[in-house]
Amino acid sequence: MTDTNTNMRLKLPITCFILEIILIILFGVLVEYDKETDARKWHHSNHSEYDNDFYYRYPSFQDVHVMIFIGFGFLMTFLQRYGFSSVGFNFLIAALALQWATLMQGFFHGMHGGKIHVGVESMINADFCTGSVLISFGAVLGKTSPVQLLVMAVFEVTLFAVNEFILLSLLGTKDAGGSMTIHTFGAYFGLMVARVLYRPNLHKSKHKNSSVYHSDMFAMIGTLYLWMFWPSFNSAITAHGDDQHRTALNTYYSLAACTLSTYAMSALTAHDGKLDMVHIQNAALAGGVAAGTAGEMMLTPFGSMIVGFLAGIISVLGYKYLSPILESKLKIQDTCGVHNLHGMPGVMGAIVGAVTASLATKEIYGDGLEDVFPMVAVDKKSASYQGGIQAISLAVTLGMALGGGLLVGFIMKLPIYGAPSDASCFEDSIYWEVSSKKLLETSKLCICPQPKKHCNYTIGYVKFKIQTSLLQTEQCLILPQDGSISPTSRCQRRLYAHS
Amino acid sequence: MTDTNTNMRLKLPITCFILEIILIILFGVLVEYDKETDARKWHHSNHSEYDNDFYYRYPSFQDVHVMIFIGFGFLMTFLQRYGFSSVGFNFLIAALALQWATLMQGFFHGMHGGKIHVGVESMINADFCTGSVLISFGAVLGKTSPVQLLVMAVFEVTLFAVNEFILLSLLGTKDAGGSMTIHTFGAYFGLMVARVLYRPNLHKSKHKNSSVYHSDMFAMIGTLYLWMFWPSFNSAITAHGDDQHRTALNTYYSLAACTLSTYAMSALTAHDGKLDMVHIQNAALAGGVAAGTAGEMMLTPFGSMIVGFLAGIISVLGYKYLSPILESKLKIQDTCGVHNLHGMPGVMGAIVGAVTASLATKEIYGDGLEDVFPMVAVDKKSASYQGGIQAISLAVTLGMALGGGLLVGFIMKLPIYGAPSDASCFEDSIYWEVSSKKLLETSKLCICPQPKKHCNYTIGYVKFKIQTSLLQTEQCLILPQDGSISPTSRCQRRLYAHS
Amino acid sequence: MTDTNTNMRLKLPITCFILEIILIILFGVLVEYDKETDARKWHHSNHSEYDNDFYYRYPSFQDVHVMIFIGFGFLMTFLQRYGFSSVGFNFLIAALALQWATLMQGFFHGMHGGKIHVGVESMINADFCTGSVLISFGAVLGKTSPVQLLVMAVFEVTLFAVNEFILLSLLGTKDAGGSMTIHTFGAYFGLMVARVLYRPNLHKSKHKNSSVYHSDMFAMIGTLYLWMFWPSFNSAITAHGDDQHRTALNTYYSLAACTLSTYAMSALTAHDGKLDMVHIQNAALAGGVAAGTAGEMMLTPFGSMIVGFLAGIISVLGYKYLSPILESKLKIQDTCGVHNLHGMPGVMGAIVGAVTASLATKEIYGDGLEDVFPMVAVDKKSASYQGGIQAISLAVTLGMALGGGLLVGFIMKLPIYGAPSDASCFEDSIYWEVSSKKLLETSKLCICPQPKKHCNYTIGYVKFKIQTSLLQTEQCLILPQDGSISPTSRCQRRLYAHS
Repeated sequence: MTDTNTNMRLKLPITCFILEIILIILFGVLVEYDKETDARKWHHSNHSEYDNDFYYRYPSFQDVHVMIFIGFGFLMTFLQRYGFSSVGFNFLIAALALQWATLMQGFFHGMHGGKIHVGVESMINADFCTGSVLISFGAVLGKTSPVQLLVMAVFEVTLFAVNEFILLSLLGTKDAGGSMTIHTFGAYFGLMVARVLYRPNLHKSKHKNSSVYHSDMFAMIGTLYLWMFWPSFNSAITAHGDDQHRTALNTYYSLAACTLSTYAMSALTAHDGKLDMVHIQNAALAGGVAAGTAGEMMLTPFGSMIVGFLAGIISVLGYKYLSPILESKLKIQDTCGVHNLHGMPGVMGAIVGAVTASLATKEIYGDGLEDVFPMVAVDKKSASYQGGIQAISLAVTLGMALGGGLLVGFIMKLPIYGAPSDASCFEDSIYWEVSSKKLLETSKLCICPQPKKHCNYTIGYVKFKIQTSLLQTEQCLILPQDGSISPTSRCQRRLYAHS
Repeated sequence: MTDTNTNMRLKLPITCFILEIILIILFGVLVEYDKETDARKWHHSNHSEYDNDFYYRYPSFQDVHVMIFIGFGFLMTFLQRYGFSSVGFNFLIAALALQWATLMQGFFHGMHGGKIHVGVESMINADFCTGSVLISFGAVLGKTSPVQLLVMAVFEVTLFAVNEFILLSLLGTKDAGGSMTIHTFGAYFGLMVARVLYRPNLHKSKHKNSSVYHSDMFAMIGTLYLWMFWPSFNSAITAHGDDQHRTALNTYYSLAACTLSTYAMSALTAHDGKLDMVHIQNAALAGGVAAGTAGEMMLTPFGSMIVGFLAGIISVLGYKYLSPILESKLKIQDTCGVHNLHGMPGVMGAIVGAVTASLATKEIYGDGLEDVFPMVAVDKKSASYQGGIQAISLAVTLGMALGGGLLVGFIMKLPIYGAPSDASCFEDSIYWEVSSKKLLETSKLCICPQPKKHCNYTIGYVKFKIQTSLLQTEQCLILPQDGSISPTSRCQRRLYAHS
Repeated sequence: MTDTNTNMRLKLPITCFILEIILIILFGVLVEYDKETDARKWHHSNHSEYDNDFYYRYPSFQDVHVMIFIGFGFLMTFLQRYGFSSVGFNFLIAALALQWATLMQGFFHGMHGGKIHVGVESMINADFCTGSVLISFGAVLGKTSPVQLLVMAVFEVTLFAVNEFILLSLLGTKDAGGSMTIHTFGAYFGLMVARVLYRPNLHKSKHKNSSVYHSDMFAMIGTLYLWMFWPSFNSAITAHGDDQHRTALNTYYSLAACTLSTYAMSALTAHDGKLDMVHIQNAALAGGVAAGTAGEMMLTPFGSMIVGFLAGIISVLGYKYLSPILESKLKIQDTCGVHNLHGMPGVMGAIVGAVTASLATKEIYGDGLEDVFPMVAVDKKSASYQGGIQAISLAVTLGMALGGGLLVGFIMKLPIYGAPSDASCFEDSIYWEVSSKKLLETSKLCICPQPKKHCNYTIGYVKFKIQTSLLQTEQCLILPQDGSISPTSRCQRRLYAHS
């Protein structure tokens, strides 16, 4: 299927080249090695090689990196005809976003003599920001062109950095695993974009907006990598020592409890008691999202498990009952259900974080209070002040996300990016070379109804007699073929094949 | 396919909720952070952040975690119609088992003032115990309901912890990579359960108890992750320094040699010299199992390679010649062949460990003897005493596994868990929502024989003439379809479709 | 499909057993633990456990290990009917190569009292050498028997070790990520082997030398793991501290920029602007190859991004325009396009390394100069001398690769290894057990033309009428089946089925 409008021959190269050249120039002007990656600076001071932050954080960084590219990428391959785009556009926008995020975060989080310093911590932070963009991608999956996504990434990264700056630098919020900055922001930003890009006639491509057996298997690869490495995600930038250790542990228990409640709720909400792959692939991860803020605190394994347990329940209920309402009432077509995986669990995580923070005492944290709550330990603010800050941060994040999503949604709505038509959503072949050979398994034969008639069709060299009189509307029949469907002469007009 | 008996709508949620709530309560009462994850305790003492065990063990933990969820999960997806269950039930029972194992192992391995201490080491140990349950899962794969598996997990984890306590704490056995505690125990426990759950009429679902091309590809993901990360598995809880380093190295060589002998034996035992995916997926891993006990000892690369080389040979021979006998003579239907991958190589690993231990001298180990054999170095026992202990431990493990499996098998045999019927084994659609769309590739049209007749059938809107006179017995024909197979009126009774 | 010539029943076991037994004997005689893996030696000296190189390098080793077995293995599964062989032969030859490489590299890089010392660094180096063999495998993918590949591995590893010895030990070349030693060597060696093994009639299996939808999805798993872990690859054996840190950072930026230019070029070079999976799967990795030499130097993020940006452009252009010329003019049938992914970007990386080295100053590197350029810092050679050495090293590598490939190509051409016929290339079923069930999706019905005629064929129990008069030449029709295609009697001679 080729469409002049969706032709990316000039739009995509121009966008990529311009963005990358701008990035390269800005990196040339603004970026330099930090003291742990610069040969001269590192060797200037006296320390053990092991003091290099690389050894504290690089294994966590690689786990996060896998979550971004394999985790998010494959989680979205559940769509039957959108695997190339899911994993491929995920790859493209992540590669852009992490570069742009390095600049934006570097700019907002403090320049060093006019220079942005980079090292393993900036790599992790850039991947975090990228994760937020990919969450928004999940809300609009299948309905956008790659150019549109690149535009979204540029704006969203910028707003993410502003929001993160307000929270972490101005307010002194704690949000190591990003329940607010990453998940809440990414989800509500993406939902608002989806609202602005609402397609009333999306039902035209409804038959492709679902999974097949193998696509669900590929999606489970994404799910499991997200699940396994979430402890690394939440702990990647917490303080060295007990903080990283504790955060990983809390997240691990939250996820385990969440998995049990997800399976329970999935079976319970199905009339025949059958498990739904959508729930398993997504809701089982809500425990990681919900432990994103409080994970580094003294949440205890007990508290972590309660959080995860409730997150799984909320998430499945969201998929089952809330998503249809969002679509029908609020006109938000949330392809991956990011509201259920990132939105509600993110808000929950923010609330849990606020409550846990407000209960912090010197007695519980000892000298470790300084690492977790420097505002309480050093600036002598009360714990309930910290809790209040956490709650305010959630409100700020929601405001930034919804306002930003509204604005960026309208920018994305401009008819210049080559977005797919309603009928060609959720379809790889408009943006990717998919040979006829590749269509073997899912090629379709579409026939128009005609009363009291039948037609002979030839697939390859096999003749079929199609009872067109049985048809009510145009119908598509999925048939195996070698790419050469050809009708016999007399019914030719009524038959066409598409991928 | 819906069956009242296998309906999980109440059974699964009730089981999951009860178990998880019990776990949460017990965690609330019994579990607290260890001194490396607790903010107050960690900051109380004076040390470098790097002394935190997190940095010694967390990368290994994550590798083990991948083995448990991706490795075991995908290894079992080789079945053509059981991918959702393989990876999904693996996910469910692992999430349960690791929580329960934390409690059981914490209880048996020593409480601290009535509290179980948790940290990265308890996380690794819990994952290890979970691995044992997943091995047993492999033996009964396709023939059990998720509730049955959860029940098995609860009991098996408990018995695992008892056996581990006897070996490591009472006897002073060395078994870092768990040739005995994990592999031998898990395999023989599972085999005994499979024996008790023997299904004489399993041939009814024989056509689904095999792989297809893509399912074998998914299984290779599992195989390779197990293979690559096995050095981390065996070294994850060995002593810091040379011990972790040496264990990883030994395992790496054992696996490499095992791979060569596996390929050789697979071609050699096939009449046409063709390699069998079953062998490559499984037997190539036997070298990791067999190096589980002796891996931390001064086995040398030379010794490791001999061990791996032999393990591969034994394992392929087991798949080829022993498994059919186990099924026909001993009535053990071992779906994944865990006897060949974990059983025999586990026993071999235990014996290699006993021999290697009995040869330990102060000359070889130097001051490192204390790390590897504290009983010899500190308690002044002889090396041959240690060797004897190792051999006794194998016998204890076999006894615990077979006795435990017998008991738990009978508990699992109670007709209350919604186990599948003989004809619906190895089939996802009894426990999972699998849309008709998803059945595209493997849907079946089943027809009863009828002498001197043919019938017309309509698949979608295409008519087929079926020669029922050619049929001897009820036969199934695999056909592509869009989920709407409908016979024309006159033959309606003789046609039904199932997934 | 069974062919006496390609029967591996004796050839493969004999080759594997002989090679592995030789390896075991040589390991027994020559290999011992290094001081960090040996219990006695490690405990002899006084140090912190953390000084053990295991903690500096093992996480990187595991990332490299994943690249070798999952990365290379799955990248090559893009072929529709060659997934078992791609991932399976990759597994086999890698398992052999890493053992042989340990010996060869140990021999050339310096024995210790007649012994080869092994530890995590030797494991990484062995995996690196294995990577080079797998690159060459990519050039001949689908056209060789496993025995032929094992023979290639033995010779290539040996020549790799010689070349590496000349560069790193004799000349003092810097090449931490192996732009020259691994990528350039592996690519040109493989291309020369492919040239010698040129098959003029390879078009006979042309229809299998392409991807299908799912095989491209599997290949993306390989691509992403290579992409994500390339920072670990390039930094795995650089000096501790800032060097490892900086190398990972540089590679990360190079890859990100490369991804953008790859997408841009892929759309730009397609007449309909559609992205080509071949480019995304391969060219997006060129940035890692091109940063292999200069990655550890003070290349700066800015420099790294320029390198990656250009590497992506060159690589896509190579796939689009150069590969067809290589095949038609130079008779090099490069299955995976290793010239575009490893060849040209490797040469580019070598040149970038030479230029960057020649610009090194004490001012830029400070005391870190000793780590990166010991020849400049300690031996007081000039930076331009180092640059010259780097350039000479590229020439040496190209010479070794092309000469070695020529020689080994002729050894591999001997008609004794059971290579596939031209018509059975790119086909798993000649070396692997692939049941008829497994053929479901791609089985073919082949029919000869016959003027003015039609024939009835029965697939299972469904009759088809084939219009043989429409056929011009023998044609194959892809049909679903249950493995039991049977023609009705009168046309029997003209019908045959193959996989």
